Amino acid sequence: MMEHMRFVKGHGTGNDFVVLPDVDDRLTLTPELVAALCDRHRGIGADGVLRVVRVDGEWFMDYRNADGSLAEMCGNGVRVYARYLVSAGLAPAGRIPIVTRAGRVTADASGDTITVDMGLPKVLGPGRAVAGGIAYAGTAVDCGNPHLVCPVSDLSTVDLSRAPAVDPGEFPDGVNVSFFTGSAPSVAVRVYERGSGETLSCGSGALAVAAVALGGAPGTIAIDLPGGRLVATFDASTAWLAGPAVLVATGDWTGGS
Amino acid sequence: MMEHMRFVKGHGTGNDFVVLPDVDDRLTLTPELVAALCDRHRGIGADGVLRVVRVDGEWFMDYRNADGSLAEMCGNGVRVYARYLVSAGLAPAGRIPIVTRAGRVTADASGDTITVDMGLPKVLGPGRAVAGGIAYAGTAVDCGNPHLVCPVSDLSTVDLSRAPAVDPGEFPDGVNVSFFTGSAPSVAVRVYERGSGETLSCGSGALAVAAVALGGAPGTIAIDLPGGRLVATFDASTAWLAGPAVLVATGDWTGGS
Repeated sequence: MMEHMRFVKGHGTGNDFVVLPDVDDRLTLTPELVAALCDRHRGIGADGVLRVVRVDGEWFMDYRNADGSLAEMCGNGVRVYARYLVSAGLAPAGRIPIVTRAGRVTADASGDTITVDMGLPKVLGPGRAVAGGIAYAGTAVDCGNPHLVCPVSDLSTVDLSRAPAVDPGEFPDGVNVSFFTGSAPSVAVRVYERGSGETLSCGSGALAVAAVALGGAPGTIAIDLPGGRLVATFDASTAWLAGPAVLVATGDWTGGS
Repeated sequence: MMEHMRFVKGHGTGNDFVVLPDVDDRLTLTPELVAALCDRHRGIGADGVLRVVRVDGEWFMDYRNADGSLAEMCGNGVRVYARYLVSAGLAPAGRIPIVTRAGRVTADASGDTITVDMGLPKVLGPGRAVAGGIAYAGTAVDCGNPHLVCPVSDLSTVDLSRAPAVDPGEFPDGVNVSFFTGSAPSVAVRVYERGSGETLSCGSGALAVAAVALGGAPGTIAIDLPGGRLVATFDASTAWLAGPAVLVATGDWTGGS
């Protein structure tokens, strides 16, 4: 474990991250270190880690879940990542390409709201999950990372105290499960994130819900999550996700001294 | 709100604190600022804030709960406070007097374990709390802050998802409620802290349980909390609480930028 490691703490609609500046790719992140950083009582505390690294002249978002596992993409994470790049003077305000494990996305960090061109999610077909002993039918969506979107009549009755069970044949890499009520112009959503638990907000989950709620039609829809509001806009060729991204602290991890 | 404010993050058996160095007493802590700092998703995240301030040549522990309310005393907080004083070079390793709202205590910060002379808790008499619709009979204990200690047969069945209800006539300032199983040489404990919720550990709660479990007799007892082990030792005139105290990060709070 590093003796001292610079970090920034930030969040998008309450989905929070430890940002690790590592422009020259010198840090070695182990699952144990990520889990220690994200521990909400013995560490700094976060839903995940965003390592900021430049690879072949491009910004790469090395995202890890709170349990140390790798993740392909994180829609709130990209916005916090872009906020950090601008705040640290590593990128000018405006359009910023960011490479993720799910491919290249573009963030527009021109103002308080940061918008990310996430590409079109792929609506795959039916799927199901069991939460609190109740089976929910839903729609599997690929946002670069795997999602299952389940309409429900009452969000408050869904038991997300533990991971919803899914068929590993259907979701071999696990899945983020979103539950929603309502329809355009706004939906209310709760998300269980693979590797993190129920979170206040999940950007790609919001996009997956928007894709299902809009049913493939172009349009704009507000997604109200426990941590705040995101807005998704779809056209024929891509989808944008917009919302706030805030940095609240900067520091040094000493890891126990 | 301050634009920039130095902080240290630390914990004792998972009971975690934002330490605010303020030797010259310049910070104004509002409940809103404390709550923002302690917010686990939009802030740094902690069970409480420890402002480190020198008053009339003595170290004063200005302790606040996560909701911004004032608290008299915090047994884990004192140990983290002492660790900070030594780590920052503000006090030499050894015996350190610390003034709290519940009076002066002495910490012994000579090694990895920090021991605090907490004084003898006052065992007051019977009390009761209702948690999850179930009434629990217990013993009210004054450790400088108010406690209720309830023996149970199975800790896992106690519902601490919300504050146990107590009679405000009996506990006009609210109360920290501890549930325990076992007897000397070791007890297992869960605590609901007034103003913070269920925590991984509560030092004064551990001392209150020890007072009840030892029944007024001198002796040593280990208290196993969800976040780790504390050890209480009683003699005829005082009681000591011993356990680890760790600092994990240091930084600047910017509060949203």
